[in-house]
Amino acid sequence: MQKNTNVRVSLPVVCFVWQTAMVILFGVFIRYNAESDVRWREFRRTNNISSDIENDFYFRYPSFQDVHVMVFVGFGFLMTFLKRYSFGAVGFNFLIAAFGLQWALLMQGWFSSLDTDGKIKIGVENLINADFCVAGCLIAYGAVLGKVSPVQLLVLTLFGITLYAVEEYIILSILHARDAGGSMVIHTFGAYYGLAISWMLYRPNLEQSSRLQGSVYHSDVFAMIGTLFLWMFWPSFNSALTDHGDGQHRAVINTYLSLASTVLTSVAVSSLFQKQGKLDMVHIQNATLAGGVAVGTAAEFMLMPYGSLIVGFFCGIISTLGYIYLTPFLEKHLKIQDTCGVHNLHAMPGVIGGVVGAITAAAATETVYGKEGLINTFDFDGDFKGTTPSRQGGMQAAALCVALVFGIGGGIFVGCILRLPIWGDPADEDCFDDQFYWEVNQEGNIASEIVIKRKSVFIDLCKYNHEIIICNRTTYIYLLQITYSLLDVVLSHCVTR
Amino acid sequence: MQKNTNVRVSLPVVCFVWQTAMVILFGVFIRYNAESDVRWREFRRTNNISSDIENDFYFRYPSFQDVHVMVFVGFGFLMTFLKRYSFGAVGFNFLIAAFGLQWALLMQGWFSSLDTDGKIKIGVENLINADFCVAGCLIAYGAVLGKVSPVQLLVLTLFGITLYAVEEYIILSILHARDAGGSMVIHTFGAYYGLAISWMLYRPNLEQSSRLQGSVYHSDVFAMIGTLFLWMFWPSFNSALTDHGDGQHRAVINTYLSLASTVLTSVAVSSLFQKQGKLDMVHIQNATLAGGVAVGTAAEFMLMPYGSLIVGFFCGIISTLGYIYLTPFLEKHLKIQDTCGVHNLHAMPGVIGGVVGAITAAAATETVYGKEGLINTFDFDGDFKGTTPSRQGGMQAAALCVALVFGIGGGIFVGCILRLPIWGDPADEDCFDDQFYWEVNQEGNIASEIVIKRKSVFIDLCKYNHEIIICNRTTYIYLLQITYSLLDVVLSHCVTR
Amino acid sequence: MQKNTNVRVSLPVVCFVWQTAMVILFGVFIRYNAESDVRWREFRRTNNISSDIENDFYFRYPSFQDVHVMVFVGFGFLMTFLKRYSFGAVGFNFLIAAFGLQWALLMQGWFSSLDTDGKIKIGVENLINADFCVAGCLIAYGAVLGKVSPVQLLVLTLFGITLYAVEEYIILSILHARDAGGSMVIHTFGAYYGLAISWMLYRPNLEQSSRLQGSVYHSDVFAMIGTLFLWMFWPSFNSALTDHGDGQHRAVINTYLSLASTVLTSVAVSSLFQKQGKLDMVHIQNATLAGGVAVGTAAEFMLMPYGSLIVGFFCGIISTLGYIYLTPFLEKHLKIQDTCGVHNLHAMPGVIGGVVGAITAAAATETVYGKEGLINTFDFDGDFKGTTPSRQGGMQAAALCVALVFGIGGGIFVGCILRLPIWGDPADEDCFDDQFYWEVNQEGNIASEIVIKRKSVFIDLCKYNHEIIICNRTTYIYLLQITYSLLDVVLSHCVTR
Repeated sequence: MQKNTNVRVSLPVVCFVWQTAMVILFGVFIRYNAESDVRWREFRRTNNISSDIENDFYFRYPSFQDVHVMVFVGFGFLMTFLKRYSFGAVGFNFLIAAFGLQWALLMQGWFSSLDTDGKIKIGVENLINADFCVAGCLIAYGAVLGKVSPVQLLVLTLFGITLYAVEEYIILSILHARDAGGSMVIHTFGAYYGLAISWMLYRPNLEQSSRLQGSVYHSDVFAMIGTLFLWMFWPSFNSALTDHGDGQHRAVINTYLSLASTVLTSVAVSSLFQKQGKLDMVHIQNATLAGGVAVGTAAEFMLMPYGSLIVGFFCGIISTLGYIYLTPFLEKHLKIQDTCGVHNLHAMPGVIGGVVGAITAAAATETVYGKEGLINTFDFDGDFKGTTPSRQGGMQAAALCVALVFGIGGGIFVGCILRLPIWGDPADEDCFDDQFYWEVNQEGNIASEIVIKRKSVFIDLCKYNHEIIICNRTTYIYLLQITYSLLDVVLSHCVTR
Repeated sequence: MQKNTNVRVSLPVVCFVWQTAMVILFGVFIRYNAESDVRWREFRRTNNISSDIENDFYFRYPSFQDVHVMVFVGFGFLMTFLKRYSFGAVGFNFLIAAFGLQWALLMQGWFSSLDTDGKIKIGVENLINADFCVAGCLIAYGAVLGKVSPVQLLVLTLFGITLYAVEEYIILSILHARDAGGSMVIHTFGAYYGLAISWMLYRPNLEQSSRLQGSVYHSDVFAMIGTLFLWMFWPSFNSALTDHGDGQHRAVINTYLSLASTVLTSVAVSSLFQKQGKLDMVHIQNATLAGGVAVGTAAEFMLMPYGSLIVGFFCGIISTLGYIYLTPFLEKHLKIQDTCGVHNLHAMPGVIGGVVGAITAAAATETVYGKEGLINTFDFDGDFKGTTPSRQGGMQAAALCVALVFGIGGGIFVGCILRLPIWGDPADEDCFDDQFYWEVNQEGNIASEIVIKRKSVFIDLCKYNHEIIICNRTTYIYLLQITYSLLDVVLSHCVTR
Repeated sequence: MQKNTNVRVSLPVVCFVWQTAMVILFGVFIRYNAESDVRWREFRRTNNISSDIENDFYFRYPSFQDVHVMVFVGFGFLMTFLKRYSFGAVGFNFLIAAFGLQWALLMQGWFSSLDTDGKIKIGVENLINADFCVAGCLIAYGAVLGKVSPVQLLVLTLFGITLYAVEEYIILSILHARDAGGSMVIHTFGAYYGLAISWMLYRPNLEQSSRLQGSVYHSDVFAMIGTLFLWMFWPSFNSALTDHGDGQHRAVINTYLSLASTVLTSVAVSSLFQKQGKLDMVHIQNATLAGGVAVGTAAEFMLMPYGSLIVGFFCGIISTLGYIYLTPFLEKHLKIQDTCGVHNLHAMPGVIGGVVGAITAAAATETVYGKEGLINTFDFDGDFKGTTPSRQGGMQAAALCVALVFGIGGGIFVGCILRLPIWGDPADEDCFDDQFYWEVNQEGNIASEIVIKRKSVFIDLCKYNHEIIICNRTTYIYLLQITYSLLDVVLSHCVTR
């Protein structure tokens, strides 16, 4: 079935209208906070802050930039592994992240940074939160990569950010759960949101574009850029919003160790389950990151270095096995087509992270944390004064359920919307192909040049036909055959590059 | 016309002589400043600084590293989009930046960091300034990319840095204009400097190398590495030299928002003006950055979040339209060949940034800034005590003119020098081709291997010729034809990869 | 000789067992230190630390992240230059770094961070040290790139880290030498360790895989990602562990300048010694970094800006000449096959760095450093109170010898172990080829598709054979020939991509 992938009206309209809405809403609601406002010096004096270096900016900006790199280069390049969808991977990732962070500033602001004057006061912490929020939607993008139009992605992002903000508010403010690196809030929610959408948009004939649903040598190297920047900066991700001082410090150490551990077990399982012990790039690109996801919730807790290693150890195994067994199973039996395997990289490790967080919180004792440490780490203050660790553990578990419900429920709802036949999504045989949304030059040209040459060779042959004597007929037919088969080889080579 | 592109004498001589000059001049002039000198502890005591963390290093080093990445990876990879000029893009970028930053330390030092003992005292702020200065020349490189020799680039840089330092001194010190992110000082100057040089070096027959003046699939992905690192780290660029505390904080927020807004409008215009609504990688790679340029001057001002969004909104539109309409117009009617479209990415947004800065400065009020904030933000102190915002706005406008005059005038002057026939620049048909300045192996070899094979096939045919009986002559001729055409296809494929 | 490269048993076993050992050893030995522990607030009060920003985390985390990028992206991508070994370059680099950093935390901890309670207390400084330690092994990997199995690499890393920790302890603690950026401890040791292993594993018939021992156009661009991230972040590397305040500040300036200088002289020599003055990507990718290595030891000293330029100046020359003359010499006459040329990039500049450090230390005077500065910079305190600069210079020289002895001796020892025929290393004709340890799809498929087509063409010809009359026999033979030669061209093209 031929589908119309022309988004010449819908894409510009959505971009212009939504961006205009952002301008207006920012005009009404968003202002600088005390630390980014010109009145900072006054604020310093009032609050007796001794130096400019105490501005939250200097605590968090390096981590913010690392998170920013993860969102734009990390997620973007991780998805470039497909042979002919690199533009879409990195370009649409760019587009939806740029929109999403604006909308996130508003949504999260309304829920958590609204000042008494009705304005949202933003600073570096809000920027980090907005990037986190966007990460949830980019994870969802991973599940539907190559199968949706940019307009659908923008809709996915609009609703994704909205759902995220509500879910985050319930988890962090109402349930008072802790989730420093967002195992639940970001990864579990994002992955199930994307998987539910993918399930709603199930394409029974997707194997028609199976020729493009794989990598080539250099696209795998591009994807490693994404993997490594995610892997390296994950300690910044999990520590970006934790407490000043030991909170950030400890979250970095835990994440660093968990990730290191994951690499070894991912490699081990990848080698063990493949013919001749060869490693599979898909596992190295993805499963090696599972440890960072799974340690997200507990990163700021006293998980202890060996605890982090253990979490990473098992996540590497589970994630890699997921790629080997679960992804084909999900596609075949549950009709969930998961392009990037977000179920293995984000969903399962996210749930593990939530469980680890709940157990670690429930098991927290004054012996390990000290009285003051316990209060600070779990923020047992204000309305939550006197909460016990075991109750906190229960809240963490409840939070995980909220993330799951929002992810799956939200995904089904948004999936319904995205099934409307107005979004310009590609036909089953046109998935994973950049040429429907991008001007792709050069190789496309070579391919078509060869098709043209193929035709002209045929015409030439027809011309010569009458001159070739009967005894050469066989030769002639054969000539035609080898010409065609050679052209086909070159053609297939060009197209699949 | 065949030109001699051999730079075996000129390039080493220039590199050695200039680097030796740097060593000598550094020996005479450059010393550590109080914060990087071993006497820092003494300085701390004398100035009553309570902690090592108050060393300017900790305020600015993370931003410096981000700027460094923009200069070397950002600019370098952004220019790799050409199919056969990636070595030149990233390699010459590397070379001229490495030279330029040394010369900039000297030139800028003489103008602004000269101590009473006749020495230039350097610290992290000088390193950032040197990187900024180099950025101006790299922008100019974008306009002449692929059309000049490395020796010409070094000359361009030598004069570019010199002109920059003078222009910067006039703008920042004499006119006392503010230009945190260098909309005027860096972008306007750099872009017009490069465009004027490109105009002076106009190549009427450049279409002879049009086969190489485009991208291939993976070169576009490489270019996205440059785009994204520029985009992500632009907040650091605009905030690297602003005031400690709220100054850096606010500049980051403004730039972050402006850039996000630009992405959406660039995508919208790109889709709207292309056939079938497809996006053009050129726009995504370049126009999405225009918002960062345009918010450069006003980044530290109280532009307000929505103000930043508005600036980004319009710059995305203007820059993308520039790529669609203005670049062809400039080439056809004004004889300005602008390889990377720096007019759209740097020149126009730079001028807009200057104008926005002038208006914002002129409109500054005590209501918004507070009495103290106004003085701090605009540095209405010392000789400039009592300057009014409206006067400051005038100075900003004057500064923009200075940048334009230096850019265009300097470019014409340097263009004259670069027209001398001694620099080893390539002929019109050899532009955008790495093989004239780089050892390019392998694919070149495959191409030549095919040429050799083509010849040997012909020789073989001649040998067999006398054995083929007359009735087969047609077959023979045809054989020759298909062989040739197939080889041509493979050949063209290899060459254009 | 066909070798068995199947690592399906050995690789998973090594990964699982070693990672399990890490979990156990971490459980027994590793704990958070005072600055990453939840008791940090108590520690603050006890030690009268005024603010969370004084936590060492904020002094060192930005540098740590830069070092982390150098280790994983820098070293990883620098080695992707080979046309068909990019997976191995970046993937095995990832694997051994992830293992190495865990083992390094333990080994270095036992030697230098062991607390009175028998626990190793870790913080951000330990993470940096672990990354440094890993860097030594990654340098060694550069010498044997493409010629060893992943299991061999893990063994190389296990022993490399162990040797490093001992060598580092002797150099830094017993000899009390200073080595901020590890010219001796990291680069000299790592390079000679790798070279000695390569010498022990000499492959007399390595030219059998010479078709793969080179780059293609885009693999050279990938390698530039590694080069640039190493180059840009080297200032962070050399300053990551230096003293707070001026120590870090000065190390950054010295490294920045030395690297800039190296670029110009590398370019000059590369152009001077190649035909027609063309630049060689190998030199630009590698020799440009030599200045960072050579300034490592002295980076924190009062080397003066011009001193740094001079060091970089000569290292660029020496390193580039090394690639031109020394690498072929080493391979031919000393039987050392050095894939990445680590002798030119790390060994020689490392030794130079050690010598520069010794001279600079010996020449240190109170006039330049001040009394207090001298004590702080060289840590003439505690047991080493009253050490004279000249004695320190002697210790630095002794330290260089220790690094050399450990590198060469350790390499020979480990080389013996790696010669055992149990590690699954590739045969001489299979070196530099990813397909033996990685699932390589697509292009491999195209290549084999062509091989299959070649066969089917032959079968077709045989079928038609009896139908072709005698007069066409020549034509037939010729047909066979051109078909084959065309297929070969396409095939070789696909394989070498």
